[in-house]
Amino acid sequence: MNEGREGTDRSPAYGERPAETGLPVTVPSTALFTDQYELTMLQAALRAGTAERRSAFEVFTRRLPEGRRYGVVAGTGRVLDAVENFRFDDQMLDFLRENGVVDGPTLEWLADYRFSGDILGYPEGEVYFPGSPLMRVEGTFAECVLLETVILSILNHDSAVAAAASRMSVAAGGRPLIEMGARRTHELAAVAASRAAYVGGFDTTSDLAAGFRYGIPTVGTSAHSFTLLHDTERGAFTAQVDSLGSGTTLLVDTYDVEEAVRTAVDVAGPGLGAVRIDSGDLLLLAHRVRQQLDDLGADKTRIVVTSDLDEYAIASLAAAPVDAYGVGTQLVTGSGHPTCSMVYKLVARADSDERDAPMRPVAKRSMGGKTSLGGAKWAARPPDAAGVAEAEVVGSGPVPPELADHLLQVELVKDGTVVGREPLDAVRERHKAVMGRLPMSAMQLSRGEPVLPTEHR
Amino acid sequence: MNEGREGTDRSPAYGERPAETGLPVTVPSTALFTDQYELTMLQAALRAGTAERRSAFEVFTRRLPEGRRYGVVAGTGRVLDAVENFRFDDQMLDFLRENGVVDGPTLEWLADYRFSGDILGYPEGEVYFPGSPLMRVEGTFAECVLLETVILSILNHDSAVAAAASRMSVAAGGRPLIEMGARRTHELAAVAASRAAYVGGFDTTSDLAAGFRYGIPTVGTSAHSFTLLHDTERGAFTAQVDSLGSGTTLLVDTYDVEEAVRTAVDVAGPGLGAVRIDSGDLLLLAHRVRQQLDDLGADKTRIVVTSDLDEYAIASLAAAPVDAYGVGTQLVTGSGHPTCSMVYKLVARADSDERDAPMRPVAKRSMGGKTSLGGAKWAARPPDAAGVAEAEVVGSGPVPPELADHLLQVELVKDGTVVGREPLDAVRERHKAVMGRLPMSAMQLSRGEPVLPTEHR
Repeated sequence: MNEGREGTDRSPAYGERPAETGLPVTVPSTALFTDQYELTMLQAALRAGTAERRSAFEVFTRRLPEGRRYGVVAGTGRVLDAVENFRFDDQMLDFLRENGVVDGPTLEWLADYRFSGDILGYPEGEVYFPGSPLMRVEGTFAECVLLETVILSILNHDSAVAAAASRMSVAAGGRPLIEMGARRTHELAAVAASRAAYVGGFDTTSDLAAGFRYGIPTVGTSAHSFTLLHDTERGAFTAQVDSLGSGTTLLVDTYDVEEAVRTAVDVAGPGLGAVRIDSGDLLLLAHRVRQQLDDLGADKTRIVVTSDLDEYAIASLAAAPVDAYGVGTQLVTGSGHPTCSMVYKLVARADSDERDAPMRPVAKRSMGGKTSLGGAKWAARPPDAAGVAEAEVVGSGPVPPELADHLLQVELVKDGTVVGREPLDAVRERHKAVMGRLPMSAMQLSRGEPVLPTEHR
Repeated sequence: MNEGREGTDRSPAYGERPAETGLPVTVPSTALFTDQYELTMLQAALRAGTAERRSAFEVFTRRLPEGRRYGVVAGTGRVLDAVENFRFDDQMLDFLRENGVVDGPTLEWLADYRFSGDILGYPEGEVYFPGSPLMRVEGTFAECVLLETVILSILNHDSAVAAAASRMSVAAGGRPLIEMGARRTHELAAVAASRAAYVGGFDTTSDLAAGFRYGIPTVGTSAHSFTLLHDTERGAFTAQVDSLGSGTTLLVDTYDVEEAVRTAVDVAGPGLGAVRIDSGDLLLLAHRVRQQLDDLGADKTRIVVTSDLDEYAIASLAAAPVDAYGVGTQLVTGSGHPTCSMVYKLVARADSDERDAPMRPVAKRSMGGKTSLGGAKWAARPPDAAGVAEAEVVGSGPVPPELADHLLQVELVKDGTVVGREPLDAVRERHKAVMGRLPMSAMQLSRGEPVLPTEHR
């Protein structure tokens, strides 16, 4: 990684440089990434006099995707940007007025909107389990309810990609992982996916916007079209090596792999950086190509494979002489689970309209599921004697003294000011460290129960 | 829909108003939504003298998602915006320079980049089948290769959502469909998903940004948190009706549905607009609530259901007294297929570096799959005597005269100028019309073969 961009999220937050072009992933305001009902609820509550009741909303999930053993919190840094830049400008207010979305008093209220409350939650890169209180947003009902949609959008998307990335990272066992799924998802979701993949353990990305925005190292050399553009494969390899040097990666499966490998080493010399295989039986080809490269004296030339990989395919190549994996579709679509089922629920609110009225727990309680536990919750993950996590303990009363050192939530926003921003590399390191403290069964790709039970106190 | 925004894409294209804030989905430039290898290929081709070879790239898919009977082309309008605004500004060029992505001559070339070629393709809203040449991008290799990633990102994402929307629309049989998946996907993917859902037959969206950007009608009233905020359900309903009128939709499953329905009609009167059920056994509840509403004299009050619906759940409610469906997760994640497998392949290129050299077909031809058919292709869909489509005919030679009236591709970009932009409502109408000309089996939700065979001529 170069010095200027160190995998940290140092770009300006949303909206700081709206007058400059060239920020492919900067959005001036996040306020309309919002379901209309947040605004109509605001209007009705303003009129009823209940809008200012102190409220606590929690983000949690009732279950992990089927068979998954842990979830990964990702997107927290993007949530902080989104909250900071959640502002209604004149153009947005005009839109709401012209379309009759809300009434005049509500528009006036929105014009002044700045979140002034508190947010606490699991730090980004942490793991989570069913019922883990991932994030708590506290303030007036009015200021908190508006943030529901954008917070869920970010966490549901980014955490889904990070979970897939984490499993692939486990499967790769330390071999480098390249994120190359931009073409398989929305062009801006791709940038967030690249960020989430980095959190989950990926090393590099093909997506230039992700490099630009988040400083994630970018990689890439050539596609089949480059070979087809030229009159011969040798001509294409020569053109690439002339321009990119012999350390480049040559794609060897446009025509015949064996011939291509021979040509590649002939053109680039035994110092050829790598060959890439993008189709066929990767296990078989990797062994054959390794043998061929070694026979040609190119024993340092690496082998990169990139064909429809997921965590299982990666694991199946563990014994193959593969030096790096490029992953696209299955990564950016969460390997079968493209979204998490996180919800944003009111769990406590002031008992009356009086200022400083005491809070009381609230919860939906109809038949037919979707019930939840009322009350603002703490969470702790106590370790056993060997330092391995034993359980996810969640409670809404006082924290038992023996758990006080193992609490999971941290302050993210205090009185409307972001206090929890951190470098992306720190997030990535946290995820690695946390994985190292989970029971070994977290490393199993097979379906099973969550590796930690959630205990309610 | 109000007069100002008629479901047409009339907002300024990407980049026209970078100095204004308040454009939650306008992106100044799309040039970095690009895999690095597009740029390294450019560099190598510039140096080799092959960059200016006239080339044709085609977007197609080798297969539909398993069991799907047709695909839906969506995102074309967004592709046109993306191509128009694909420009490298100083900040982007600095990024590429500082990170050593490409060399000086390539940076100079990029600084002047404007796509000057031609794009033709299936009009948006059309259906497609395996091998359908959905889009063809023609120009120099250099100018075409750069567009690969962003074009695929847009088409793969938007078409996946539109296909799910189309199936849900078939299942709903004319009942209104509300898109409400913003919280289940990336916040900007959500806006594109809303647009794609509208193309596929959805009527409204909960996503304010989608209303703002594309003029899609927005809807929404209240969530469980609004009921929980108030001391009683009656208090919540009263607050909502006071503010939003009796035509509003009251959410009746926070506590006891039967009691809630009674309270709702008591508070709003028999003119209550609608009740919403968001959990439980929807089939059973819809019947019970309908009976109860009718007994209370609220026989015009509609029933909206919104709990974890997909096309099968919608179809299973066909006989239930349901008046509208709200769909979230399964819509924005493509109902099990969150991305399409569209690829962007070089299919023909100039035979030499000479100006006006004749084009010749090219194709990958290694073992192990991923082969494709060379040559720029036309496509036609001839109807039978009853006007029902018989086959998807694809060829690369001259168009047989009997197919000349049934060609599918239209001009989208001519000499770098967008000529194929059209109102979103026209796209939506096209999709409906096209569906009406497919064999009846297109309406079956069950797994099966594509409803039209692809014939290669």
